[in-house]
Amino acid sequence: MAGPGSGILLLVKKHIYIYSPSSAVRDKAAFKRGVRRLTTLGYEVELDETALSSHQRFAGDDDTRLAAIARAAASGADVALISRGGYGLTRLLPHINYKALDKAVSRGTRFVGLSDFTALQNALLAKTGAVSWAGPALGEDFGTEGQPDDIMEACFDDLITGQGEGTGWRLPKIATKSGADGAWQPGAEGKFGVKSAVLWGGNLAVLCSLVGTPYLPQVKGGILFLEEVHEHPYRLERMLTQLLHAGVLAQQKAIVLGQFTNYKLVPHDKGFKLATVVAWLQRQIKAPVLTGLPFGHVPTKVVLPVGAKVALAVEDRDAFLLWGHSH
Amino acid sequence: MAGPGSGILLLVKKHIYIYSPSSAVRDKAAFKRGVRRLTTLGYEVELDETALSSHQRFAGDDDTRLAAIARAAASGADVALISRGGYGLTRLLPHINYKALDKAVSRGTRFVGLSDFTALQNALLAKTGAVSWAGPALGEDFGTEGQPDDIMEACFDDLITGQGEGTGWRLPKIATKSGADGAWQPGAEGKFGVKSAVLWGGNLAVLCSLVGTPYLPQVKGGILFLEEVHEHPYRLERMLTQLLHAGVLAQQKAIVLGQFTNYKLVPHDKGFKLATVVAWLQRQIKAPVLTGLPFGHVPTKVVLPVGAKVALAVEDRDAFLLWGHSH
Repeated sequence: MAGPGSGILLLVKKHIYIYSPSSAVRDKAAFKRGVRRLTTLGYEVELDETALSSHQRFAGDDDTRLAAIARAAASGADVALISRGGYGLTRLLPHINYKALDKAVSRGTRFVGLSDFTALQNALLAKTGAVSWAGPALGEDFGTEGQPDDIMEACFDDLITGQGEGTGWRLPKIATKSGADGAWQPGAEGKFGVKSAVLWGGNLAVLCSLVGTPYLPQVKGGILFLEEVHEHPYRLERMLTQLLHAGVLAQQKAIVLGQFTNYKLVPHDKGFKLATVVAWLQRQIKAPVLTGLPFGHVPTKVVLPVGAKVALAVEDRDAFLLWGHSH
Repeated sequence: MAGPGSGILLLVKKHIYIYSPSSAVRDKAAFKRGVRRLTTLGYEVELDETALSSHQRFAGDDDTRLAAIARAAASGADVALISRGGYGLTRLLPHINYKALDKAVSRGTRFVGLSDFTALQNALLAKTGAVSWAGPALGEDFGTEGQPDDIMEACFDDLITGQGEGTGWRLPKIATKSGADGAWQPGAEGKFGVKSAVLWGGNLAVLCSLVGTPYLPQVKGGILFLEEVHEHPYRLERMLTQLLHAGVLAQQKAIVLGQFTNYKLVPHDKGFKLATVVAWLQRQIKAPVLTGLPFGHVPTKVVLPVGAKVALAVEDRDAFLLWGHSH
């Protein structure tokens, strides 16, 4: 791998701009490990001047974080990557310069992140139609104590080099006895496909917090992907119910569920669990509810274009989301 | 107090119908204590046939609970009281017979409850304009191991006998050094009053889950009251942000905050707390944000008419919500 001294190779080094639009970075060791890892992988890493700022829970007060987002947009980087998620973007939404982000996207900057970042991604889509990327965060994904996840790094590299054409995964078998009780099953209906549909979504709680506001994209005939962490299945169901009653779910050609992790079932549930919610969801809508997408608060995560037209193909248990070259 | 044998007094006994529209009753002892307490207080208590049913987390499957709500509406009771809150009403909302509830209200039945019941109350208001009551639940309020709260019981009796004319409370002093950083302060602006405005609201998370759906009342020039339990201030802020961005808050003449309880601050907060959120909220809107309303997941709770026209008066630190006789 080329060192910092090799002038010619520096020209082709991909440029990553790290900034903090949400919560304050507390795990500075993970932050540093993440920067080191990206450097080792051959990227040029630039740190925003307030990437490590702290104000209450936030990575700086509102003006500080708005300025950080503006600098990320002006950076000319190949990827503007969040240091971490957490909380803080929803309250900034009325004050973000979406035109500047849109311009940055058309100049080739890919905005990458997840979790709280869902708010900015969907607001950007609603306001300008610009595509951003659901993907890793610096600390949690590149700054792990052990080796970062292979698939996550490969997908990220495909994205930054413009090689990514899509993603595939294996649909999990449903544990319930009757196929009719679970998510959509390929065995029941054979193949399923969508030729072209806008992919959108992200973190379920953050997305739901946009319902009824100007920051929820009005996507008809789309493919909605969702993930969540630390939320009990009854709360997931309540959130999905909001999307259902708001008419959002009925307008989609498919719902793709990622990873729903780190919640705790209790004795009161008496059999009410995540699969119960998925089965309930499938009974509420005609479009298939596909599960198992490798995306969420888990190490193995793909990148997904929020706002891009994609194709969806399911054959047997193999599912593919395809968007072609992104450069 | 009259026993069950005194025929003449039986005619004037107030009739309470207990039903379970949300979560299954697990604390049967509290349920029994609650029924005993209401009987001791001189009310005639009728139990719905599925008040103790259980299906997963719920007090019966959807059809069972819809039938229970229908029986409560047909009961002719003075008060239809929920056994408990929990979760389960939002998914029923498209299937509830609101006309039947509206008719029951005009015949004199007062629907009383809180927490998850917020969903039904606001959907009923949205669909028919009928008034219901934010107030106690059987188990948690009348079925406590010790003596139930005096004020709660007095407010409930005022409601069932049609004597209630309003409620008053003392505005808490704001702990921050500068008044400008806190909620609205009477000292800063003198008196404040609203002659007539629709009171509405309830549990913040449940109310937010209605935003963007046909079940959120479109109240302009209203007074919105809110309470919550087990939610960290950053999540409260995210929920309030949704109401803000959806344009709901700007349309109200006052926001009245009840009790926000049982959350846990963490080191990451670094000074971000409930008062921070209240102060932030007050900076976002012109209408006063009043605090300290004795309502929420706490023993001392008043009853509040959801959907009724009320007057609001603040003088010095004394706040009053007035609705006149309700019979």
